Amino acid sequence: MAATLILLRHGQSVYNKENIFTGWTDIELSDQGRQEAIKAAAELKRLKLYPDVCYTSWLKRAIHTAQIALLEMVWEHIDCIKSWKLNERHYGAWQQRNKDVVKQEIGEEAFLSVRRGYSTPPPPLDENDPRAAKFDPKYRDLDPALLPKSESLKDTHARVKEYYRDVLIPELAKGKTVLVSAHGNSLRALVMEIEHLSTDAVVKLEIPTGKPLVYRYDTGMTAIKKVKVN
Amino acid sequence: MAATLILLRHGQSVYNKENIFTGWTDIELSDQGRQEAIKAAAELKRLKLYPDVCYTSWLKRAIHTAQIALLEMVWEHIDCIKSWKLNERHYGAWQQRNKDVVKQEIGEEAFLSVRRGYSTPPPPLDENDPRAAKFDPKYRDLDPALLPKSESLKDTHARVKEYYRDVLIPELAKGKTVLVSAHGNSLRALVMEIEHLSTDAVVKLEIPTGKPLVYRYDTGMTAIKKVKVN
Repeated sequence: MAATLILLRHGQSVYNKENIFTGWTDIELSDQGRQEAIKAAAELKRLKLYPDVCYTSWLKRAIHTAQIALLEMVWEHIDCIKSWKLNERHYGAWQQRNKDVVKQEIGEEAFLSVRRGYSTPPPPLDENDPRAAKFDPKYRDLDPALLPKSESLKDTHARVKEYYRDVLIPELAKGKTVLVSAHGNSLRALVMEIEHLSTDAVVKLEIPTGKPLVYRYDTGMTAIKKVKVN
Repeated sequence: MAATLILLRHGQSVYNKENIFTGWTDIELSDQGRQEAIKAAAELKRLKLYPDVCYTSWLKRAIHTAQIALLEMVWEHIDCIKSWKLNERHYGAWQQRNKDVVKQEIGEEAFLSVRRGYSTPPPPLDENDPRAAKFDPKYRDLDPALLPKSESLKDTHARVKEYYRDVLIPELAKGKTVLVSAHGNSLRALVMEIEHLSTDAVVKLEIPTGKPLVYRYDTGMTAIKKVKVN
């Protein structure tokens, strides 16, 4: 079997449902989000795509999406490796705020330059803001300098690119089928890397939820073929 | 922090509840079993024992015990590595059969020599028995010669001992806190190894469910201290 990379974007979370910026906030899937994970599993079963190993971010909406999908596939015995480098884009001071309220405050142009631009981060979280990652015990062993206070898509891309090169590519090079369960923006960044997209193309890219993206690789570790998914 | 090993035996499964031999049968936890995982998590929180990495068998009652405990601890971001070498003792042709019925069939002495002896396996599963591990897709990439058709506690001990030496000890040697979620007999075998128990002692050993066993290690990787758990 040729090396295969399966990208799975988590489905609806409680915050998505309530139109709130999430970023690194560790919020749970909604019931609809759980259903989307089951639907994705059905599609992987149909394609007979049983992963050898699973990668997720450190956020429960991605971890649970992988767990629900693997439970549904009766394929829970594979290792699950987790990294903050697959986390969603950090949304800075906008995290946990209503999207419409923020848009009204700063105006549509400034809003879109952050949401749909490549290099513009939202305003950073204050050092001592209780929402800062450094106050979440799971980040306690990381170098605090690594922890973002806000990210542009470019910043997210930089860490995802590193993880793709250092962790995912070496696994794929062993001929494995690799599942990555992550987020809208960390997966956009990953697809940018895989498909060599321009910044113009990546900002327009929409990653579907509950519907896996599947890439086959040649032995030179170039993605050669996208598998058609229903 | 000194290297710490946490052993967690899964709680009640649906088969335990129904007095059926389980072994490698991949049966789910009962509601009571889920509650026991939550109780174990409460104890780990009380002791401030937050693992760096988690190991489980390939059986869902151990995998889910770890997942439920880590969810309860708000500590789901650690890697979960899984191995069939941590599976429960293989109970051969007795798997999925009622314990009392088997005892009645073969007599109490023969029954106890298998259940409480060290070297006596139950009768093996037939090559083409649909319960054989080779028919379960998750074992498809393993050398079929490795897959047991029945095991004595001694057989289980042999594979668990290997896993302890090759995988767990190297992790502990890095000073890590390591969680192992597994089964009555695979954990007995592990404790035999850790505490250098005799075969007489190990057959009398009862591993509690829902109550972690915690060992501290010295730098020479000898378990020096058992932590008192409520």
